[in-house]
Amino acid sequence: MRLGVDIGGTKLLGALVDGPEVVASKKRSTPRGGPAALCAAVAEILDALDPDHAIGSVGVGIPGHVRSADGVVESSPNLVGFSDGAVAVGALLADAVGRAVVIDNDVNAAALAEHRHGAGRGVADLLGLFVGTGVGGGLILDGQLRRGPRGLAGEIGHSVVAHRHGVECGCGQVGHLEAYAGRASLERRARAEAADGSDSALVELAGEKRMKSSVWEKALAADDPLATRLIEEAHDALVAAVVSVVVVVDIERVVLGGGLGHRLGEPLRRRLEDGANESIFGDASIDVRWAELGDEAGVIGAAHLVA
Amino acid sequence: MRLGVDIGGTKLLGALVDGPEVVASKKRSTPRGGPAALCAAVAEILDALDPDHAIGSVGVGIPGHVRSADGVVESSPNLVGFSDGAVAVGALLADAVGRAVVIDNDVNAAALAEHRHGAGRGVADLLGLFVGTGVGGGLILDGQLRRGPRGLAGEIGHSVVAHRHGVECGCGQVGHLEAYAGRASLERRARAEAADGSDSALVELAGEKRMKSSVWEKALAADDPLATRLIEEAHDALVAAVVSVVVVVDIERVVLGGGLGHRLGEPLRRRLEDGANESIFGDASIDVRWAELGDEAGVIGAAHLVA
Repeated sequence: MRLGVDIGGTKLLGALVDGPEVVASKKRSTPRGGPAALCAAVAEILDALDPDHAIGSVGVGIPGHVRSADGVVESSPNLVGFSDGAVAVGALLADAVGRAVVIDNDVNAAALAEHRHGAGRGVADLLGLFVGTGVGGGLILDGQLRRGPRGLAGEIGHSVVAHRHGVECGCGQVGHLEAYAGRASLERRARAEAADGSDSALVELAGEKRMKSSVWEKALAADDPLATRLIEEAHDALVAAVVSVVVVVDIERVVLGGGLGHRLGEPLRRRLEDGANESIFGDASIDVRWAELGDEAGVIGAAHLVA
Repeated sequence: MRLGVDIGGTKLLGALVDGPEVVASKKRSTPRGGPAALCAAVAEILDALDPDHAIGSVGVGIPGHVRSADGVVESSPNLVGFSDGAVAVGALLADAVGRAVVIDNDVNAAALAEHRHGAGRGVADLLGLFVGTGVGGGLILDGQLRRGPRGLAGEIGHSVVAHRHGVECGCGQVGHLEAYAGRASLERRARAEAADGSDSALVELAGEKRMKSSVWEKALAADDPLATRLIEEAHDALVAAVVSVVVVVDIERVVLGGGLGHRLGEPLRRRLEDGANESIFGDASIDVRWAELGDEAGVIGAAHLVA
């Protein structure tokens, strides 16, 4: 039995995990009082799940730039109280929960879960590609999570798909995959183009609210011209980024997930698979499969961060 | 002492290698009679370098798509007689030379040499980036050559830097790095644009001959508008591809080489370094250094393919 915690911007999810199964779980909203409050909340969840400390170590997935090797969170824009530079979350958590702690990026954890127990079972090398508000990735090479010397690996959302005159990314640079294929960036572009007079029902469908993946799905079904064009660009950008991963590190499989990814559905999956296969020499092939573990991938993967 | 052979499209170079030193070498033109003739020529070189078979194994670098794990050359467009599908070069060579043989892609070998004894000493993770007729790459991760499940890894020349409306690559696909930054593709573009009336001395400087790196250097020095624009695009494409490698796998160093790479000089090196550093979070940094082993990198690296 393993213990895992998935820290999100709005909720914390802790679970007792047995292989691929979530045996018991506990959820609460993410405290907004900074690292100490966060650690206390994680401790509370773990005490509820494992009051006798039968399990001596826990894996924790955290959004942002996480250096797993030394337990440091370099930055985490989605967590309140983490904007003043690096925080030694691993050490703070270990102290608060009374267990050994392994932390890692939340998307790395999800990719690990899909590799161990989901759509990546049985292959040694895969890319987990999660298309949601942003675009996240996790890379498994030779059966191991690739973290890299400073924990930067897997950030495919910030790979460059348009080297000149590219669209601006949320990170401030241009031409990144996320600028084309992340839901938040798609919404920014759609609202800007609609304000400039582009013919589209997207803004009307979304109203004052977030332009959710379901809004895009509806607009596409109605052949909305703006939605069709922007999603076409998103597809192309995703194919380009996946092809680059294939030729640079070589992988056998892409595991595709995330809210927007699922809404874009089979056409996206097939284009990724065709694009990846066109890019390789000889008769080797690459398959693109849907993620299998859904929202639980993060916490299952977190539990598996512990060796 | 080690034995290595670097097989090129026009010449074969064999060497006795001691650490970073080429102790003795033997060169001849590459036979154009297919695999059997090639193997016989390699055997002749090795017999001259090590007549008593004092060294029981040899590493061999080969241009093209090489699967090191099972010794198969999937394709090698620059070698005559390798166009009819995969060839089990490893086994053929072992038979011909009477030694154990490890084969790999020639650029992988060069990257390995730079890692072991050149500009990559002391770092665990690096990209070797060789800008010449084409654009080749070799990736060292955790101190080991990354080959990937089918030997595709390192082919950064075919990573996608322009996901829409990109320039056509020699491989037939569009938007690849090599289409922007390889010398052969730059020449194709320059000749086509000059034929369309673009103001440039490039064609005149090159005449009927190959548009060599020195031609580009002269045109840039004279502020030739077409040369300036195309090389500017090449710089941008190289930065984009390197940034993508940095965010996807995380590396500490880029080792830059190749004939055109050297001609483009310090401005290119600095742009790559600045681009890579802008792309990373926190205060980590990445350096870009010139390759140190020059034309001998291939044969030194080949010798080091043997564990």
